[in-house]
Amino acid sequence: MPKTSQVQFKLTKEFLDEIREAIHSGSESQIELLLKDVHPADIADVLDQMTLEEAKFIYKTLEDDRASDTLMELEDEVRNRFIKSLSNKEIAEQIEQMDSDDAADLIGELSEEDQEEVIQQIEDKEIVEEVIDLLNYDEDSAGGLMQKEYFKAKADAKVSDTVVELRKQAEEIKSVYSIYVVDEDDKLVGVLPLKQLIFTSPNSLVSDKMISQNIKYAKVSTPNVEVADMMEKYDLVALPVVDIAGKLVGRITIDDVVDIIKEEADRDYQLASGISENVEPTSSILKQTRSRLPWLIIGMLGGILGAQVISQYEGEIALNPALAYFIPLITAMGGNVGVQSSAIVVQGLANHTIKIGGIFPKVAKETAVGLINGIICSVLVFGISYLISEDHQLGLTVSLALLTVILIAGIMGTVTPLMLNKFKIDPALATGPFITTVNDVLGLFIYFVIGLLIY
Amino acid sequence: MPKTSQVQFKLTKEFLDEIREAIHSGSESQIELLLKDVHPADIADVLDQMTLEEAKFIYKTLEDDRASDTLMELEDEVRNRFIKSLSNKEIAEQIEQMDSDDAADLIGELSEEDQEEVIQQIEDKEIVEEVIDLLNYDEDSAGGLMQKEYFKAKADAKVSDTVVELRKQAEEIKSVYSIYVVDEDDKLVGVLPLKQLIFTSPNSLVSDKMISQNIKYAKVSTPNVEVADMMEKYDLVALPVVDIAGKLVGRITIDDVVDIIKEEADRDYQLASGISENVEPTSSILKQTRSRLPWLIIGMLGGILGAQVISQYEGEIALNPALAYFIPLITAMGGNVGVQSSAIVVQGLANHTIKIGGIFPKVAKETAVGLINGIICSVLVFGISYLISEDHQLGLTVSLALLTVILIAGIMGTVTPLMLNKFKIDPALATGPFITTVNDVLGLFIYFVIGLLIY
Repeated sequence: MPKTSQVQFKLTKEFLDEIREAIHSGSESQIELLLKDVHPADIADVLDQMTLEEAKFIYKTLEDDRASDTLMELEDEVRNRFIKSLSNKEIAEQIEQMDSDDAADLIGELSEEDQEEVIQQIEDKEIVEEVIDLLNYDEDSAGGLMQKEYFKAKADAKVSDTVVELRKQAEEIKSVYSIYVVDEDDKLVGVLPLKQLIFTSPNSLVSDKMISQNIKYAKVSTPNVEVADMMEKYDLVALPVVDIAGKLVGRITIDDVVDIIKEEADRDYQLASGISENVEPTSSILKQTRSRLPWLIIGMLGGILGAQVISQYEGEIALNPALAYFIPLITAMGGNVGVQSSAIVVQGLANHTIKIGGIFPKVAKETAVGLINGIICSVLVFGISYLISEDHQLGLTVSLALLTVILIAGIMGTVTPLMLNKFKIDPALATGPFITTVNDVLGLFIYFVIGLLIY
Repeated sequence: MPKTSQVQFKLTKEFLDEIREAIHSGSESQIELLLKDVHPADIADVLDQMTLEEAKFIYKTLEDDRASDTLMELEDEVRNRFIKSLSNKEIAEQIEQMDSDDAADLIGELSEEDQEEVIQQIEDKEIVEEVIDLLNYDEDSAGGLMQKEYFKAKADAKVSDTVVELRKQAEEIKSVYSIYVVDEDDKLVGVLPLKQLIFTSPNSLVSDKMISQNIKYAKVSTPNVEVADMMEKYDLVALPVVDIAGKLVGRITIDDVVDIIKEEADRDYQLASGISENVEPTSSILKQTRSRLPWLIIGMLGGILGAQVISQYEGEIALNPALAYFIPLITAMGGNVGVQSSAIVVQGLANHTIKIGGIFPKVAKETAVGLINGIICSVLVFGISYLISEDHQLGLTVSLALLTVILIAGIMGTVTPLMLNKFKIDPALATGPFITTVNDVLGLFIYFVIGLLIY
């Protein structure tokens, strides 16, 4: 292991206790010592576990740039509380340390009144200009995601002059991947890999060494999700952003896009689990309740509708109560199959493995899968019921209903998200509790109709 | 928009038709023209839609490095079929064009016999050595993920000499982010940002300009998922990998890690949806069936167990068939709540928002959420049943059972994944169909016991 590097940081209860002890004895130097080699992302994890008072004590001991990095790594709810406790002057000081995209995000979270005050307190007028520009864009677009820190070179400049020019830009740019090349109107015309800058003869022209074919870029209005798809697909670590006239206005880096990729995947998973708002285990009880109640009420209404369906067959149940035994089996299986098939479609749409072609081939495939699984399950359930019960009519009813339910639930689970997607509605809405509820009611209906036919 | 760049590529039916037409008229030049400015990732999307014969025709028209890039971008199943149709000589030629990590992945997919033959056909002995070394590591570790292409500099060298040295290494390295600095034993001692190399005086020593504090790195044995977490958390685009003695042996780049982050999130979603293998809409019917059957059978056994529970209360149902009406409501709500609470825990564990602390505070919180949602749903269901039915005992039974089920299902959904995680079992196994099935049976039991008490 590198001698100079400590083992990777792990947040332990012991470490938190040490920190708390230092806080309560008011020892700033002890805190500085404990956090000396700790990355801001890890310091943020520590602050997430502290009370506001404790967190502020730690925060005050951090140097300026580490303080602002830590601030941006806090969990949203913790950051909001934290910022409310800072004065506008203090916020302005932090913002001067930040990359422009983080600065704009932070200011965007403030009330309009506070925004104005904070902006007035920022001393560096260039930062003010950048932040105000970034605040104009929709947060879910490339414009809302980009930063103003990037290397820019003129196409008609010599490489040697470019190096001198770039040295001036270098100070405020943390990470460098490529240099974006513009023409005299500031329009993006090429990309110069850093490699070229290092290994090329200083006398060559930038335009001779740059890549100008097939440059990947986003427009300010390109949606977030498309930016993420593009960077993921083409393995890009940074993407230039141009305005409506083709002028270079910003850069998006992969770290911000990784967050989007993760959020998108998490969101689909949450919708499939019946959670309608982005919640985390740390979210407040109220927020958790609010995010979960809508689907529970829909599920409940589905249950009441199901009760209506069953009540139509009251006579049959009174005559033959065993019919009621298999109600949960039928509804559970319909639900499971629907969730499976809709999850495959929603993931396929999100990952673009479903690309073109109509609905029909997908339904045909789902029908084949449903037929195989349905026959296996039906034969099994008939076999089991044959062994444990005399009532072979019941076994036949259950197994035929099960086969039908598996088939129809699979088709419903496939068609519903595809249709939603066609009408530009988020297909993930069709997963989880929604498809389960629909299939419950449908399954009950099929079960009793088949029961009526057989008995 | 940059004049030199075409609009972003979109896969259309028309484009595929044009390609197919060119294939069937045997016009290689037409295909070359159509695919001239198309990125290998997009060409792979085209090939994914073609028959094997058509795909091979296109593939033969691609220059060497575009061909190998395209090959690595194909969907797994398509690539497997494709590779089977290539001779070992052809595979060896492709491998010589690839980055070492891709080369090792591709060879790893072959049978042992083919592996030996392909390796013998590779002319560049350095590549052979690198690939054989990479094949030694577990696929799911940093060693299995890393590549051998990276920039390396000596700590005691001058920056000017380093530039000369790096120029020799530059040819085979596609993307450059940082230069890893080693001591005389090849041990990793620091990282030199590319920025420093460009803007630093040529006479300074590498060791004076490098970062040596707190370098982030992985060991060859570090699990994939930890690598992904680290790179995501610390916003890294590349991570050096060291062996057990601390010697620098490879580098992991963010593009490979983005794939892992995505796969992990997709996998949790699939498990929650009752899909036990990684399937896509394009997967074969057999694979889809196989991935879905295990959970369906578990669900079915749960349904049969549920039938056993209900059959214990045959007498009550015969006397009062209306009791059967609300069976689906109770099971559905137990399922929904269980899925919600387990999803929050599983996501919290995956995203590390659940960090430390015991199970008890989480259960307490879930109980509070369940109590609020449960009371709202129970009051609603009692109100509705009061309005539509004379049987107030039934309404009381359903609403009390509902409250109890919501509470217990939420606690089950919270505790089960936490317990699994404690015993190092994947908590995602506790989501979806599993928790639904358990809660179905439990819910039925609660419902009838309460029914028995009230009537």
